[in-house]
Amino acid sequence: MNANTNTNINYQAIAKELAGMETISDRDRLTKLSLDYYHFSPILTEQLQDKRGELAIFPTTEEEIVRVAHTCVKHKIPLTVRGAGTGNYGQCIPLQGGIILDTAKMNQIKWLKPGIACVQPGVKMAAFDKKAREIGWELRMAPSTYRTASIGGFISGGSAGMGSVNYGQISDRGNLRRVRIVTLEAQPQVMELSGDEVQKVLHAYGTTGIITELEIALAPAYPWQEVIVVFADFMTAAKFGQALSDSNGIVKKLVSIHAAPITRYFAALQNYLPEGKHCALLMVSEYDFAPLQDLVREYQGEITYSKSASEAIKGTSLLEFTWNHTTLHARNVDSNLTYLQTFYFTLDRLEQLYQQAGDEIMIHLEFLRAGNKAVPAGLQLIRYTTEARLNEIIRNHESQGAFIANPHVYTIEDGGNKQIDPQKVAFKQKVDPYGLLNPGKMRGFSK
Amino acid sequence: MNANTNTNINYQAIAKELAGMETISDRDRLTKLSLDYYHFSPILTEQLQDKRGELAIFPTTEEEIVRVAHTCVKHKIPLTVRGAGTGNYGQCIPLQGGIILDTAKMNQIKWLKPGIACVQPGVKMAAFDKKAREIGWELRMAPSTYRTASIGGFISGGSAGMGSVNYGQISDRGNLRRVRIVTLEAQPQVMELSGDEVQKVLHAYGTTGIITELEIALAPAYPWQEVIVVFADFMTAAKFGQALSDSNGIVKKLVSIHAAPITRYFAALQNYLPEGKHCALLMVSEYDFAPLQDLVREYQGEITYSKSASEAIKGTSLLEFTWNHTTLHARNVDSNLTYLQTFYFTLDRLEQLYQQAGDEIMIHLEFLRAGNKAVPAGLQLIRYTTEARLNEIIRNHESQGAFIANPHVYTIEDGGNKQIDPQKVAFKQKVDPYGLLNPGKMRGFSK
Repeated sequence: MNANTNTNINYQAIAKELAGMETISDRDRLTKLSLDYYHFSPILTEQLQDKRGELAIFPTTEEEIVRVAHTCVKHKIPLTVRGAGTGNYGQCIPLQGGIILDTAKMNQIKWLKPGIACVQPGVKMAAFDKKAREIGWELRMAPSTYRTASIGGFISGGSAGMGSVNYGQISDRGNLRRVRIVTLEAQPQVMELSGDEVQKVLHAYGTTGIITELEIALAPAYPWQEVIVVFADFMTAAKFGQALSDSNGIVKKLVSIHAAPITRYFAALQNYLPEGKHCALLMVSEYDFAPLQDLVREYQGEITYSKSASEAIKGTSLLEFTWNHTTLHARNVDSNLTYLQTFYFTLDRLEQLYQQAGDEIMIHLEFLRAGNKAVPAGLQLIRYTTEARLNEIIRNHESQGAFIANPHVYTIEDGGNKQIDPQKVAFKQKVDPYGLLNPGKMRGFSK
Repeated sequence: MNANTNTNINYQAIAKELAGMETISDRDRLTKLSLDYYHFSPILTEQLQDKRGELAIFPTTEEEIVRVAHTCVKHKIPLTVRGAGTGNYGQCIPLQGGIILDTAKMNQIKWLKPGIACVQPGVKMAAFDKKAREIGWELRMAPSTYRTASIGGFISGGSAGMGSVNYGQISDRGNLRRVRIVTLEAQPQVMELSGDEVQKVLHAYGTTGIITELEIALAPAYPWQEVIVVFADFMTAAKFGQALSDSNGIVKKLVSIHAAPITRYFAALQNYLPEGKHCALLMVSEYDFAPLQDLVREYQGEITYSKSASEAIKGTSLLEFTWNHTTLHARNVDSNLTYLQTFYFTLDRLEQLYQQAGDEIMIHLEFLRAGNKAVPAGLQLIRYTTEARLNEIIRNHESQGAFIANPHVYTIEDGGNKQIDPQKVAFKQKVDPYGLLNPGKMRGFSK
């Protein structure tokens, strides 16, 4: 517990101070509202499993959030903002207790126009898309937790997902346009950041202000056909994934390549995944299915599953087997599995690391546009033994030139960013001078 | 004149044989219908200026085209298909006289659906887009001759243009879906090619069949804002062009960078082009204008012109100053200018060649997606002196690792392709065994 935060709080009194807002202080429910999918990591499990907030609060308006901010500053109470709790790095786990501000009831779409929308942070991604598609648009990108994840949570704790093969990451200029935040200054205030300024709150785990509104760029909505292609050889599947990602004439949204035996973990898809074969799980424009078939032929793949957008929407989307949902399905079968996040950069390096993988590492690739190219991000499944061995695997990847965004750490800097962002830190000094917002997550910050 | 074609034709009799179709045999009108914008090249001018067809014919249906094919085969008459004549390499100039088949009256949109359309070859590109935008779609790419060019002509003789920064070239798998052609076999027949098979007629200058119908993939239509940005330094402008092309979060359609003093040739834009400054001519999604402004700021550019899509449509589009329209404007001022087409591949190589350019070479860059990257294609203006000097310039570029698609040659192979395509040649052997279709343009073919 940090010395500067007040450990001697009467949360019943605080709940009264915040009367008019729904609060929860029931221990079991607080447990649920304190955690996320950190348990994909045995290391984070050990570090975070006993962390709990003391009071959860569900504001419905920006005015109410300002009231919460005032209360937290007045009593020096830590405040951790929560979306849908679908993160994997303990992004929303309160390290120092305090108040959990759940954004679930800040779920209004303020406006929705061609190309751009303005939403409150608690809007669920799939629910948003349902509305947006009525006018021909959809989210530019979304994670595999799309059905339950909130837009504010994704912007604060996510990075990429389906759609990233076109639009890159949330941090790519243009994807997030404007945010409105409440600060935790001595006199909390409402502030707007637009343009490049939004980087200060992007993927900041809620340490640099409480988001009350976001303006996000949209993509034209296509009818996305969902397709499984199987391949006899993993590297052929990987090369197919790269070729599809690079196919300028084929519009796609998801390119996800899985090495056997990962395919065994996809119980619902077993009819389409012959034993020992490697697979591609795809979303492509229905209009571009014909040229996709030509590409599949070129790479000697076999299409075993193909659903039109209207069929696909009735069942489980292939999205739910990709990105970190792969880990979820695998852990349902074998809870000893964990994962890594890797940029291989080149297919040659991928091949080299694939040949070294043995039984311990099972590779799947999620293609996204990073800088000027489409690249495969590896979210390998790892048969976990010890932390020392996991770190050895990481070092082995790094020594061969791969980049690991370590998902077994809970600070912003130790994960994908690798370095302290002085802009974010300086901004936090200003908007959260007492260090109350999600304390302990921004390593570069000190009060 | 080729020995295998009949030089002793009575074209009045032929016109009678084709009764029911409009024909033209007036010498002045035939001259216009025989030529294209080959005169951008002093070398092609010398080689092609006296080439003329003997009879032009304007069929309106596929059945009529089959009749023309029968007649040509029967009498062994050369047949050259013509779109709008906006090409630059003499693609549609009849080297051996004969019949000119003008597709202007084959101008029906057969059907138009989200994502895909089916058109006759003579449909004008801008006219098509006007219809397609009514349902929210547009052409994936189009040349600077967009207002007058025909779709069939672009597929047969073009390669890239605005939109290519997203969808690559016409030859990228998926952009052209299906073609219907009439062959010049002993018994002419109608044939359909789909998928990868379409490569046999793509950019083949009409040597491998007479196109009667094309199925083309479309792009979602955005309101395209037209923007001019000026820069003090050319390489900064070039880097800005690359950065915009690589900006995953900014939707664009045209990224065209012009070194001073090219800007002087754009008479209509003089108010927006300060003397000595270099410029970017852009089309970006109106919805993404804000992040474009941030990018402009990063590269210390200055926006001097910005028109919304609805304003832009009233005047001359910036498209009409880019790609090979740059050459057109420059030659209106100085008819001694010609041009080259260059892939620099890297900005380092571009810089090196820019520093060597002197007064003789003025560079403009048109960004397009080629393979897995956005790259600048240079369409340099050249102050022409002699053919020997032009070839020396070409060799100098090539020796430094640039690729020149020579626009001063009239065969398919000597231009961009650089090699004989055995597939195209074999296909021509089958569909045009007498070598009647645009004879002399496919170097790899012999009867």
